[in-house]
Order: sequence, then C-alpha cells, then structure tokens
Amino acid sequence: MQKKIYEDGERLKEFCGLFGIYGNPEASSIAYLGLYALQHRGEESCGIVSSDGQEVYMHRAMGQVCDVFDEERLRSLKGHLAIGHVRYSTTGSSSVKNAQPLFVDHLGGYFAIGHNGNLINSFSLKKELEAKGSIFQTSCDSEIIIHLMARSKSKDMLEKLVSALKRIKGAYSLVIMTEDKLIGVRDPLGFRPLCLGKLKDNWCLASETCAFDLIEAKLVREIEPGEIVIIDKKGIKSIKFDAQKDLRAHCIFEHVYFSRPDSIVFGETVHLVRQKLGETLAKEHPVKADFIIPIPDSGTSAALGFSHASKIPLELGVIRNHYVGRTFIQPHQHIRDLGVRVKFNILKEVVRGKRVVIVDDSIVRGTTSRIRVKNFRLAGAKEVHMRVACPPHKFPCFYGIDFPRPEELIANKYNIKEIAKFLDVDSIGYLSLKGMLNSVKLAKKNYCTACWNGDYPLPVDKNTGKNILEERCIL
Amino acid sequence: MQKKIYEDGERLKEFCGLFGIYGNPEASSIAYLGLYALQHRGEESCGIVSSDGQEVYMHRAMGQVCDVFDEERLRSLKGHLAIGHVRYSTTGSSSVKNAQPLFVDHLGGYFAIGHNGNLINSFSLKKELEAKGSIFQTSCDSEIIIHLMARSKSKDMLEKLVSALKRIKGAYSLVIMTEDKLIGVRDPLGFRPLCLGKLKDNWCLASETCAFDLIEAKLVREIEPGEIVIIDKKGIKSIKFDAQKDLRAHCIFEHVYFSRPDSIVFGETVHLVRQKLGETLAKEHPVKADFIIPIPDSGTSAALGFSHASKIPLELGVIRNHYVGRTFIQPHQHIRDLGVRVKFNILKEVVRGKRVVIVDDSIVRGTTSRIRVKNFRLAGAKEVHMRVACPPHKFPCFYGIDFPRPEELIANKYNIKEIAKFLDVDSIGYLSLKGMLNSVKLAKKNYCTACWNGDYPLPVDKNTGKNILEERCIL
Amino acid sequence: MQKKIYEDGERLKEFCGLFGIYGNPEASSIAYLGLYALQHRGEESCGIVSSDGQEVYMHRAMGQVCDVFDEERLRSLKGHLAIGHVRYSTTGSSSVKNAQPLFVDHLGGYFAIGHNGNLINSFSLKKELEAKGSIFQTSCDSEIIIHLMARSKSKDMLEKLVSALKRIKGAYSLVIMTEDKLIGVRDPLGFRPLCLGKLKDNWCLASETCAFDLIEAKLVREIEPGEIVIIDKKGIKSIKFDAQKDLRAHCIFEHVYFSRPDSIVFGETVHLVRQKLGETLAKEHPVKADFIIPIPDSGTSAALGFSHASKIPLELGVIRNHYVGRTFIQPHQHIRDLGVRVKFNILKEVVRGKRVVIVDDSIVRGTTSRIRVKNFRLAGAKEVHMRVACPPHKFPCFYGIDFPRPEELIANKYNIKEIAKFLDVDSIGYLSLKGMLNSVKLAKKNYCTACWNGDYPLPVDKNTGKNILEERCIL
Amino acid sequence: MQKKIYEDGERLKEFCGLFGIYGNPEASSIAYLGLYALQHRGEESCGIVSSDGQEVYMHRAMGQVCDVFDEERLRSLKGHLAIGHVRYSTTGSSSVKNAQPLFVDHLGGYFAIGHNGNLINSFSLKKELEAKGSIFQTSCDSEIIIHLMARSKSKDMLEKLVSALKRIKGAYSLVIMTEDKLIGVRDPLGFRPLCLGKLKDNWCLASETCAFDLIEAKLVREIEPGEIVIIDKKGIKSIKFDAQKDLRAHCIFEHVYFSRPDSIVFGETVHLVRQKLGETLAKEHPVKADFIIPIPDSGTSAALGFSHASKIPLELGVIRNHYVGRTFIQPHQHIRDLGVRVKFNILKEVVRGKRVVIVDDSIVRGTTSRIRVKNFRLAGAKEVHMRVACPPHKFPCFYGIDFPRPEELIANKYNIKEIAKFLDVDSIGYLSLKGMLNSVKLAKKNYCTACWNGDYPLPVDKNTGKNILEERCIL
Repeated sequence: MQKKIYEDGERLKEFCGLFGIYGNPEASSIAYLGLYALQHRGEESCGIVSSDGQEVYMHRAMGQVCDVFDEERLRSLKGHLAIGHVRYSTTGSSSVKNAQPLFVDHLGGYFAIGHNGNLINSFSLKKELEAKGSIFQTSCDSEIIIHLMARSKSKDMLEKLVSALKRIKGAYSLVIMTEDKLIGVRDPLGFRPLCLGKLKDNWCLASETCAFDLIEAKLVREIEPGEIVIIDKKGIKSIKFDAQKDLRAHCIFEHVYFSRPDSIVFGETVHLVRQKLGETLAKEHPVKADFIIPIPDSGTSAALGFSHASKIPLELGVIRNHYVGRTFIQPHQHIRDLGVRVKFNILKEVVRGKRVVIVDDSIVRGTTSRIRVKNFRLAGAKEVHMRVACPPHKFPCFYGIDFPRPEELIANKYNIKEIAKFLDVDSIGYLSLKGMLNSVKLAKKNYCTACWNGDYPLPVDKNTGKNILEERCIL
Repeated sequence: MQKKIYEDGERLKEFCGLFGIYGNPEASSIAYLGLYALQHRGEESCGIVSSDGQEVYMHRAMGQVCDVFDEERLRSLKGHLAIGHVRYSTTGSSSVKNAQPLFVDHLGGYFAIGHNGNLINSFSLKKELEAKGSIFQTSCDSEIIIHLMARSKSKDMLEKLVSALKRIKGAYSLVIMTEDKLIGVRDPLGFRPLCLGKLKDNWCLASETCAFDLIEAKLVREIEPGEIVIIDKKGIKSIKFDAQKDLRAHCIFEHVYFSRPDSIVFGETVHLVRQKLGETLAKEHPVKADFIIPIPDSGTSAALGFSHASKIPLELGVIRNHYVGRTFIQPHQHIRDLGVRVKFNILKEVVRGKRVVIVDDSIVRGTTSRIRVKNFRLAGAKEVHMRVACPPHKFPCFYGIDFPRPEELIANKYNIKEIAKFLDVDSIGYLSLKGMLNSVKLAKKNYCTACWNGDYPLPVDKNTGKNILEERCIL
Repeated sequence: MQKKIYEDGERLKEFCGLFGIYGNPEASSIAYLGLYALQHRGEESCGIVSSDGQEVYMHRAMGQVCDVFDEERLRSLKGHLAIGHVRYSTTGSSSVKNAQPLFVDHLGGYFAIGHNGNLINSFSLKKELEAKGSIFQTSCDSEIIIHLMARSKSKDMLEKLVSALKRIKGAYSLVIMTEDKLIGVRDPLGFRPLCLGKLKDNWCLASETCAFDLIEAKLVREIEPGEIVIIDKKGIKSIKFDAQKDLRAHCIFEHVYFSRPDSIVFGETVHLVRQKLGETLAKEHPVKADFIIPIPDSGTSAALGFSHASKIPLELGVIRNHYVGRTFIQPHQHIRDLGVRVKFNILKEVVRGKRVVIVDDSIVRGTTSRIRVKNFRLAGAKEVHMRVACPPHKFPCFYGIDFPRPEELIANKYNIKEIAKFLDVDSIGYLSLKGMLNSVKLAKKNYCTACWNGDYPLPVDKNTGKNILEERCIL
Repeated sequence: MQKKIYEDGERLKEFCGLFGIYGNPEASSIAYLGLYALQHRGEESCGIVSSDGQEVYMHRAMGQVCDVFDEERLRSLKGHLAIGHVRYSTTGSSSVKNAQPLFVDHLGGYFAIGHNGNLINSFSLKKELEAKGSIFQTSCDSEIIIHLMARSKSKDMLEKLVSALKRIKGAYSLVIMTEDKLIGVRDPLGFRPLCLGKLKDNWCLASETCAFDLIEAKLVREIEPGEIVIIDKKGIKSIKFDAQKDLRAHCIFEHVYFSRPDSIVFGETVHLVRQKLGETLAKEHPVKADFIIPIPDSGTSAALGFSHASKIPLELGVIRNHYVGRTFIQPHQHIRDLGVRVKFNILKEVVRGKRVVIVDDSIVRGTTSRIRVKNFRLAGAKEVHMRVACPPHKFPCFYGIDFPRPEELIANKYNIKEIAKFLDVDSIGYLSLKGMLNSVKLAKKNYCTACWNGDYPLPVDKNTGKNILEERCIL
C-alpha cells in the first residue's frame, strides 16, 4: 500500500504551510483564510483542528483549501483556537491518513501538531520507538515527535515537548495545539520560516507573512531558531530550548522559488530579493537582446530586476493559463503528456524575429526549459538567451525539499556549455552562489546552500542519508 | 469530537461480523460475498484488508457492503489472503477511523485485526498502556490487543498474540491477518460465534455459516473457545491458549435474534431453534385464537413453531416493506418519526374481526410493540395476544450487545400484568428461561443468559462495569 | 446513445408507480412517503414535482426514493401540491432525462405529468408530431401526450387534455399537475390501477392503496376507466372522456406479481387473491409431500393458501437476504453472476430427506427456477414438486410489462412434461386460466389475460406491434 | 424554479466559448483541450458532444473543464467529430438543463448546437413558436434556432438552418454538429469571434485562436460574418446566408477584457491591442509618477504599453493569488465578503512612499477599484493615479454581455471628477473612444461600441429591449 514514491514532475515539492491562531471566536475561519494564502506551499491535502477549550474539532482531507472547506464545515469547527496545515504529499487513497495536522488523544488530553520540514534522524528514531512498542499510524515523521512526547516521563506538556525536541534532528517548524494552548516551534538552525503575528488582540502563527496580510494581521517577528512560543489565556511566553546562537541555516530556496513574492521571509520581502537576484544576474551575465521575457510567475520578479539593470525592455512573451496551479501539480495524466503547452502559450507576434532573454528562477532537470525554448524557436525568435536566478542545482536536500535524484539534475549531467546545447539556447547564464549571497541581507553563514554546493549545515551520514532520502515520502 | 453516544433506537446493536479466507486468488471478492451474507451483523461500516504475501491492500468505509465495494475496488484489493469486517457503530464523520479491520504496520510487518465482542477490562488496560506511552488512534477496544502485542518482548508473532490474549478479558472473536497468515481466535468462554470452513482447498473463517453457504464453502467446525487457529501455506495449526474446558458462555441471544435463521450457530440451525422456542412458547402460554401472525422477519420461525404446536393457522397479517433494513437502522429522521408504520403494514381484511396472536422474538423497551398492537386494534382485530419467544430482558450486557439502559427496559418498569396493560394486549406470554434453555441443544452451563437473569459468566466489577458500559461506544 | 435495450434479467419490469396530493402544506413529504410505499413498482429513478400555486419545484434522479431525497431536498420542494413518480427504466447516464414526472413550461404555464403504462400508437403519433416540427426531449411515450396538448387549438387546459387523450391508445394511468390543479386519468379499459384517497381534508392519488396506508389516508374509490378527476381549491370534479362502459382490461398480473400484497387492487386485497390462487392451485394439482415451501416473497401468499387447502404444513425452506431488492434489480455484475444464491439460501436441515412443494407466483424464462430446484436437490430434498400460481406465459404484453421476447419464454420452448424435465422437478403444476379467473372477484371480461392466451383487448397491428415492442424501452 | 437573476458581482459575464473538430480519431480529447484553452469564456458549465458517424455521445455538467472531464469520460465520448462548449450561466440545480451544447434527436437525426452571443428577437420568436405548439425545454435562446429548424418545411438540413437564421436577429456564433457534419456559423455583423483552423488534416473551429495554439493547430481564417461553413468527409464548403458586406459590429470589449491576450481576435493579437491602448492612454493622460503598477492580469498588457510610452518603470505592486479564478467567479460567500484582498495582495515595501499609477482594463461599477485604491493608501502610497484602458461604460449590451444595470454603472452616477473622488485617487484618466478606435486596426464602422456610446448596430425596440434584458439569463 504505502510505497516509495518518486515524483516524475519537473519541479520540487515542499511539505507544507502552517497557520495557528489563539483567542478569536472565529478561529477556524481565520485559519481557513490563512491556509488559503499559504496554498502554494502544499496543494494536495489540508486540515484544520480547532478547540473551544474543551472539545476538539477536526477536518482533514485531500484537496485544496477552497474545495475541502465550506461555510458549514467551518461553522462545525468551533472554538477560539485553531491550527491549520496545507500539505504536498504523495497521492493515492491511503494518503488521507497522512493529512495533517496529526491528532492524538492521549491520557485524556488532546493534542494536534502540524510540521513543515524534514527530520534527518527519523529512521533510527522510529526503529527505536517501534522496538519499545510504539505503533505508528502514519508515515509522517511528525508522528515521531508525538511518540517521543508520549514516552516522556515528565507530567508537564512543555517538558515533554522539550525532551522530544532534544532527540530530533533536522528541519522543522511546528504549530502545536492542545485544548487550551497554541505553541510554535522552530528548529535550532531555522531552516524553514515561521512567523508570529497579531490580529488585533489575537496572537497568530504562519509560515509566511502573506497569510497575515490576508487576515489583516500585523507581523510581530519571526519565531527564532531554537525557540518555543506558548500562547494561552495568560498571554505569550517564550522558551529557548537550544542555545546554538550564531549558526543559522535559512533555506535560501524559499527566496528563490517557494515563498510568495509578497511575503517577508528571513527579514526580507521575497519579491525584492528576487528583483535583486535579477539585477545581479544582469550584471554577471549581460546580453544584447530586444526583450526580457519572464517565465510567469516565479521568474517575473527576477526578470523585472534584470530588465531594470540591463535597460532592456520587459515584454509579455508568455501567457500563463490561469486554470493550472503551480508547475508541479498536474491533475490529469492527459494534461501532463502535453507538458508546458497547457500552462503557457507564447505570443508569436511579440517574439517573431526578436532576440529574447528568458529569465527563470531555477532549472532543475531542464526538460521543461528545453521544451519552452523549443516553443520560442517555433514562434520565430531569432535568438533565445536563458538567464537563471540561482546557481545550478547539484545536491539532494535532506531538510524538506524533494528534488529529483542527483543523477537527474541537469547540472550533474552536463557542464554549462552542454546545458546550453541541450536546451538549444544561444547563451545561458546562471547566477553565481556569491552573487546570490550578495543579493540577500544576512551574512552567508545564515543560509543553507547545500543544494548548490553540498555544504550540509547538519551532518548527514551518507548511508543513513541515502535511506532517509528514499524513505522521505513515506517515513 | 468523540462523544459518549447512546442510541435512541428501539433495538440492540452488536459490533460486527467477521470473515477471512486464505489461498484463493480472488480472496477479496470471496470476502466481499462473505461480508454480504453477514451484513445483518453490522450495517454502518465495513472493510476488507487483503495481501498477496508482500503488499497489503485495504479499503474501509461507512456504509453497507454493496455500496462500499464495487468491481474496480475489489480488483484493487489484490492477493490470496483477505479478512473482512462489518460493523455497527456510532455515526458521525469521525467514525471512519473506527471502521475495521484495524491495520498497523509495525517493525516492518503488516498486521490487521477484526473483532466481534466486547472486552470488560479495556478501560484499565488502556489507562495502563497510555501511561507507558502508547498512543491510541481509535476508540475500538480491539486496538488494545494490538498495543499489547506491540509491547510484548517476544519476537514471535504468535507468542505476542498469546501474551496479549492472556491480558484481555471479555467476549472476543477475532480474525487476524499478517502478510502471509490468516488467524482465528475465540475467547475462552466462546461468547460470540466463529466458524472454520473450507472452500475447495481454501480454509476460511466466518462469524456465521450463512457466509459459507453463499460462497459454497463447507462448514468444518466451530473455532473452539480458547483456541487460536493459524492458517498459512503450510496448512492449518491449532493452539489452545486457555484451558477452561467445561465452562462456556454462548450468547443465546444469537439464537433468539442476531444470527440469520439459515446459519448454524453453537451447533444448531438457528431457524430450527427458533421454531422450537415457538413450540415451547405455545405449550407454556396456550391461547384460543383465529390466527398466528408473525412479526416479520425475526418472529417468523417462532410463529411457525407456535402455529404447528398450537394447531392455530399461520396468517400473513403484517407485510414488511423490503426497502427498510433491520429494525434498528433508519437512515432518515423523517422516517424514524413515522415509526413502525414505514416498516410494516397490517392487512386489514385479514385481521378485521379476528382473534390474533402476534409472535415476536423479544421485547426490549416495548415502545415499538405498543404501536404495533395499536395498529392491530385500528385494523379491527377483535383480540390481540402477544407471545414473546424469550424471557423479559432486565440486565445490561457487557459482552458486546448494546441494550438500552436498564431503566429503559420495559421488564424493569413493569410486571407482566402492567406490561400487558402498557402494550394494550388481551394477553401476553413470555417464554420462560427454563423453556428457552430446554429448547436448545447444549446443557445450560454452556450459555450466557445474563441479560435475562443477571448471571454474568465473567465477573464485572460494578464500578468498572458502569464505566465500561458508558464508554462502550467510544472507549 | 439511446439504444434499444433488452433486459437479460429473469423477470419483468413495469414502468412506474404514481402518487399525487393536493392541499397539504407538506405535500412533497407526503409524496415522498407515498413513493416510498410504491418503491416496488420502479426502483431505478424517481422524482417529485411540487407547487405552491405560483412557483414549481422539482427533483428527479436515478436511484431509490430513500437515496434520492433527504430532508433538505424535501424542504426545498415547497408547496401544497405535489406529484411523484417511481420508474423502472433503462440504465445509463442519459436516462436521467427520462426520469419522471416530465415537466414543461409552455406559454407561461407549468405542467408536469407522470405515466404508468404503455401506449400502442406512440410510434405513429411521434412520427406525425415530429413531421409537424415537434421536438422530443425524452424517449418516454408520455411526452407524446404533452405535445398533443401543446398543439391543441383549445385555450382550456382540460379541453387540451381531452383532445390529447382521444388520440392516444393503450394503457395509461396518469397523474398530472399544473400550478394549481392535481389531475388523475385512467385509460378507458383500466389496464393499470389508480386510486383516489383522502388524507383528512386532502385528496390524493396513488397507484396502489399501500401508499394510502402509510400516510394514514383512506381509500375513497378507484379512478374509473375513462375518467378524469380534477382536484383544486374548488374541490373535486370528475369527467368521463370515454363511454366504453362494460369492457375492462385490468391487468391480472398486478394481482399475481406486481402489486404489494397489502394493496387493494381492482377491488380486492392482493394477498387474499394470491391466497385464493394458491388454494385453487392446490385443488387443481394435488400432491403428496412433507412441506409446502414458499419462494419469498412473491410466492408466500399463494403457498399459504396451498398449505391451508392441502393441509400440508408450511415450512421456511428458503431464507431471503434482505439486502437484495426485487428479483430483477441487481446492482453489480459480480452479484449477477452468482445468480439466485445471493438472494436466497436453502435451509438444508429442514429440507434434507423431505418431499417438498415449492410454490412460486409465476415462471417466465425458467432459468432462475431451474437453479433453485438444483439447490433444493443439493440440499438433500427427496422430492421437489413445483406449483405455479398462474398459467404459463406465452405472449408479449403491449400494455406496459416488459416480458422477455416470446421465444425466450419457457412455455413457448417446451410442453409441460419438458418443462418438468428442464427444471428437474418430480412434478409441476400451473394454475389454469379458468382457475385463475375463478379466484378473482370480477367477471372474466374485466381482465386482460393476453400474456397467457394472446387475447389482446386492444387490437395491435402485428407489424406495428413488433415495432412498438422493440422500441418500448426507448421511444 | 427558473428565476430572473442579476449577478451582484463586480464584473461582466459572457455566455460562452465554442470549439469543434472534424476527422480526428481523438476528437473529444482535442475538444477537451480546446475548451480548456477557452475556459476564461465560461467557468460554470461545459459540455462535449461527439459522434462516430452513427452514434452520438454527450456529457454536460456544471463545473470547469478539468473537473467535469477525466480520461474515462473522454474515452466514452467516441468518434472523429466533436463540438464543445463552456458557459457562464446562472447557478442552481436546475441549470444543468441549460448546459450546452444543446442536443436533439429529431426525425431520426441527431443534432447538437453551441451558441455564443445573444438574440434580440428571442422573446417574440419564442412566443410565436409556443403558440404553434413548440415546447421549450431550456431557457437558452439557442433552442429557438432548433425549433425554427424543426418547423422548416425543407428536407435539407442546410436549408432548414438557413431558413432559421433568416428569422433570428442578434449576436451569434454557432458550432453545430450532425452525425456526420461539423458546421460553423457567424451572424451577419460578426459580433462574437469564431475562427477556422487546421490541425494537420482536420478542420477545426474555435472562439479564440488560443485554442488552436494549445492543440498545435494553425489559424486558417476567421469565419466571415454571415457565413456558414460545412465540414464533412467531402471537405469544407462555405455559404454566405447574408449579404451585408460592409457593415461589421465586432465587439471591441473582446479586445479590452474578454479574450485571452495570446489570441488573435478580429485580425489582431489581443495583447498587442491592449499594449497599444496603454500607449495611447499614456499620451492622452500623462502623469508624473515613480511606478506603473498593473492590475493583474487583465491590466498587465495596457500597463506595459503605458510604461513604454511614459518611460515610467513598471513595478509589481500587486500580487495575484493564483488560486482564484477570473474576477467575477467566487465560489464561497465567505471569500466574497473579503472582497479584493483575497485575490490581490499589495507589496507594501514597493509601494510605500511612492507615487503610483494603477492601470486597469476597465471600470464598471467602481466598487472593486475603490477598495483597491484604499489598500494602496493603507500600504503607504504617496499618490495613487488611476488610468483606465477604455472609455467609461454607460449603456447596456444586448448582444451577449451581462453588464450591471445602467443605474449601477459608475459612469452613470458620477462625472469624471466625482469618480476620482469616489475612488479617492489623485487623478483619473479614461481612454477616449477615439483613442480606443485609433488603437485597433480596422476602421471604426467595423466595431460595436454601444456600451460606451449607446450606438446600437442592430436596432433594439426600447420596450422589447427591456424585456430582453430582463429575460436574457433565462429566456
């Protein structure tokens, strides 16, 4: 039933978006809106758990937020406290059981948890727990945290949590809900984002600030790496469970691709970072051309920056079909076979006889880009130049991004010249790692750039690593 | 979310019907048919788990067998080994999680279990297990067995099972499936039935033999109380895990009401037992009348016996609407309000001016019978006599039948004379406990008659007992 | 898309059950209950149209009454006037369009119609209407009536209706609804039943009186052949549109098989007629045997009569599975392949070593009966005698019953001796036509017995007839 | 049931998109892709009818193309000939009956039709046809065409069609399918687009050329106003049924708003027209500002043109949520209440302290624009200037666009100064009608500009006109 699944799609997937709110009489409706704004972080399943301080209410299902929840459903999710989760996961009938937030009723206490990221010692921890008699119901590594807590000798929920966190390693942002508390946790290196906001008097948590914008909440600050934030009727309390002060491992790919351009992530507006990446790219790889053409929508900000810096006008050369979701989600095999044509159409009259620069956020396997270039050629472009707003991807991510296998990454198959040939472009330019790091605000040591340079901030045993990689989808 | 739920319906519910088969290439389709024949034992949810010796396939859902499974679904449940379960449980969105068979993947081994009956020490066992860190995902007491097995130090599956069975107390017939084994278990007192059959070369298990008839399998024997039967490619093996040889506690209410008349249960064809009950009833409570009228369908066999013994002709006075299921399942509130009229119509021309004897299998709360008698009066019956093919119900069952609370049972509210008055009958006669026991084959000590005389074969701590009762639906 | 469809099932189908009510604030809920009681007359689709005197509300769908309507749906069908329809029709996605009642909005007036029966000149009428420019939206012959009305020059709805009725020939009972009127119509020969009832102050119409029993309405009388009854706020009005006084053509097969035993049809309670048929049968075909065994449920009444007349005791030898509907409706191919075993189980211990008489209502193709007899033999019956409560079927019905083709009818393939051999029975006895007619109340000239003796009350052109037969399902 | 419905949404709706293909073995799958590309023209229902030259297959349902059709469904729509339709219509259970293509089986011939546009004499035609006995099944004015054809005395399908077209007046592009022919029709004034394409050897028809791009078909030419094109196995044939050569009434709002930017409509690429509109707008209403900010996505092309012409840089100030469809379709009331914030988020860091020019395609009621401006102010914009790429809307459209009532249009409530005040902008500039007409290729007389200047190319009787308007949704 549960099988190891590799995605054939061109792009990447991350595991989720998180939201939590305390103190609002319409908590589940707010959570619904928060999830709606975070939909891009996980389109396959979603869930909300709410509480009125006594009873707990839950709904989780496969599908997007809009389809899974309606007014009646939201009304049934009563209470002033709610957490929500959107998830990108494997398909199939059995995957509802993996929909988050995970929920348990243990020793008379309710407890729900939503997790964004990936643990790197889940394999050995699960083995150890099972040997002691724990039974796993899901294949989410988040369940490990719950079992560790259940086995903690402490009577205090917070102590249980801290003792569990001390055992796990990897990338994790968590929203946790008990009957009367909302808790936010971020791993000691801060791989994935998690923010604290305030909607009038109500504290809230979200993976990205775009969720705050939609509900008209204000960003207060990021949850700090190694921090636990506890929100209840007494207010807010913060605990540092890990002292690793100076080292950070913010996933820079959140800036390049994952996060919404209107979010503030790791202290910067994503759109502005991307624009900066585009500007730096223009300086690193100048080109003579008639137009800059963005690949919508993830390449748009960088293309704008490229255009500003290069003084080459921006043109709409590619029209996106609004009825398709983000690149990697294709509901029907039928559509998948038609590839990129379904998602984008090229404006032949704009492109014909022109020298165009296509700006994209990243290239992973290159197969999509290749078809795209071919379509530009068919549309009559005289020259096609490709500019990419990050360095070439070469290494697997163990912290929550599901790249294709290393041997499928185009940058592991070819050198730059060969890539240009494979894609059939007149020139290609990748942003340098240095250029990328110079385009962001924090110092280099604060970011994880492992997928580009193999520099893993948390050491991964090569053997274990491989196992983890293979099992990541299913634990 | 999970709340304590008391059924308002008139009748009783039992928790399930079980089926298992090993060695057939169409195991899941056979299981489907087996469950179909056992549908009367549980109409609210059903499930099948199958295995091809490597992978495990599962589908469980709310609804009846016919609605939950179709050809495509059955094709997807591959393998030569399958177990199935039909269940009567509480309603609501959260109850799919309690649909059986329960399934776990533990230490790399798959394991599924279907349970019929009720444990009487589940409350304390659950408490103990949770204190040690076990996390319960369902409110089925069957999950306790799984946790006990997971915590067993033994490496051998069978030893784990035996050690778990030694801890639990109560009524349980189990079908268990591992990747390559089919296992049947019956509790030491044999409360609930479980039979071993053979379909050509394939061993199979079923709660009732009517399942064997449908698939053209032959009844081999009952699983004995305290016996574990293990079926795999090496054949069949039997283990006695409990030595209590001479004491039995077969639920005689299986004969009176639950089982299908064409099943052989506890060594006797149910229809013939019921006919015998009717004959004995006729002798104990003779009456002068024009017609014997059976309450279809559970009263039909007893009415036939009553008619034969009394020489009073049988007549169809009540026509059953075939589009309604068993008495206690009413899909729409709208219909429920109309009560018994929806299910039965009285043949006025037959009844008018006549002295009629209504024969029913049992009376629990009496409200349905009262309306029925009223309808006979309205139809013009001159005299209405009621004969009941079992003694008056007075005590709760802790072994798997969900009677109304004791204070709701008509026999606890009124004496016989008052009951006759309440029901507005010209006379009433209940079969005596002695008469009932004389109508069945085995000696008295082999049956549980607790619901009639309070004689509980397994001691129930009064306090604990109450807790268990209250929690039975949800544990 | 629309294809000519012949049913492979063993049994027959009739096209529908009708219900109507005027003046009740919960008209659609009453109609729902009425249809529920008439479910046996059509299990494949159903519909209700209601009106509050201004707006008209409608819901029609494939499926049984219980599944198609719920409380919310019924609430949405507002008004004090409602008609309903259950239908047995061909399957497939396109057949919802044929679900009845048919509804039209013409010249600003709403109009709905439900039809039970079959027209014999529909082919030529449809051809004629299409040639004049009428467009048919369904393949129901009822639509012809609507087009004839639409083309009538008269301004008065009733005159339009009468002029349409004068053009059509065949069997038809109709319930018609306008915004403020409920109308009942029965063809001049009264093939199909239609009754007038009263629920307190509200007039109602139903195909069978069992619908009145459920809603606690009283039977007033049958709608007379050739009568139109108009019910509105002014009360009830009756019009005779056809003067054929002395000739009737009541379908006697309604008594034998179709109608519910608790209904009063053509002036007699169906159960009592069937019992009488069984008594006559016992006299015509006496037999020495240990038991009379009814084929549930359509053979039960006749078996009871046979038992009373023959003094041979009745026994339950066959247990019916309550989770299967009437014989001819089998939802899954999978089940169909298993044939009769799914629906019935034989009580081996009852039958073994005995001489049994199986009493059934009718035999059409004989294939089901043959398997049934075989199962009795396998169960160990010493002798199996078959008694059939009507004569052998030999001729097609053009008035609304969809028998198999004449060449498939067992009585057209074999003589009595050969039938006994084919079925493998020790003896067989069919009720004689004379015996059947002597068992019903009215004189012979009042019944249609065409399916047994080919004596068609309405002359059918042989060529046309054949066309009509082939098209009956789809016209 | 069917009620007159006015949409409260801010925007407009048009009735449909059309597609047809002849000669391809996977005709229905091609049609599916064609409809997918035309989804923006109608999001509420869709349908495909196909034929293999003998049988006809059909599926129509509420919902978007992706949800309504899956692989199995498409496989069931067999044949080499298919037409498809996407439709924006009123909601509710009864509206499936209005889903197109409409389908009839008349005199043994199958016939399906899809219609884009609106007839202006449908009211009187329907009245006339009903008086003659025609029965309408839908409230689509397209059904009038079918009834006119059915009543034509001619035997030839094409003659029937021409005689029907001579009776109807208004805007209509039609795709028609018989068992073996694909037919395209465009009204004499050419209000709505319809194009002829070729996919290898197969002729195809589509409302917009973006459908051809997706299936890799080539645009051959537009169907000419007053032309019927008949495609069958003999090839393609063209008939002119109306000689009005020099007058055209192309709906210029197709360029401004409806059509996809990558389509070629009325001989021009829509994106380039919009860019030109933006350039002209920049010249007509110059402004000093820091950024041009497009309202995605319909304002993007015009904003680009404005930026090029004004030399003011383009910035992404508004981020669109990709999980919302076109402006006027909002699935949940809950979301509707939150208004534009759900669809768009403003990039505060970009906007803060800046003078921004918002460029939008059109303003109808102004309520959305007002909230949008407010959000820019809240985000800290120093100045907000609005530029609109078409003139102010003042008049109703009788040819297929469902604007709000005239009294709801902002340009009928206020003068330009008041509009600026109402919207709270520092300045506002609408493109002039002259400027708009100068920005498109054809001469002025070829376009319908009635919604801006009240100059109706087809005279509408004021009284009739009103009726038509009110009835347009439901006929």
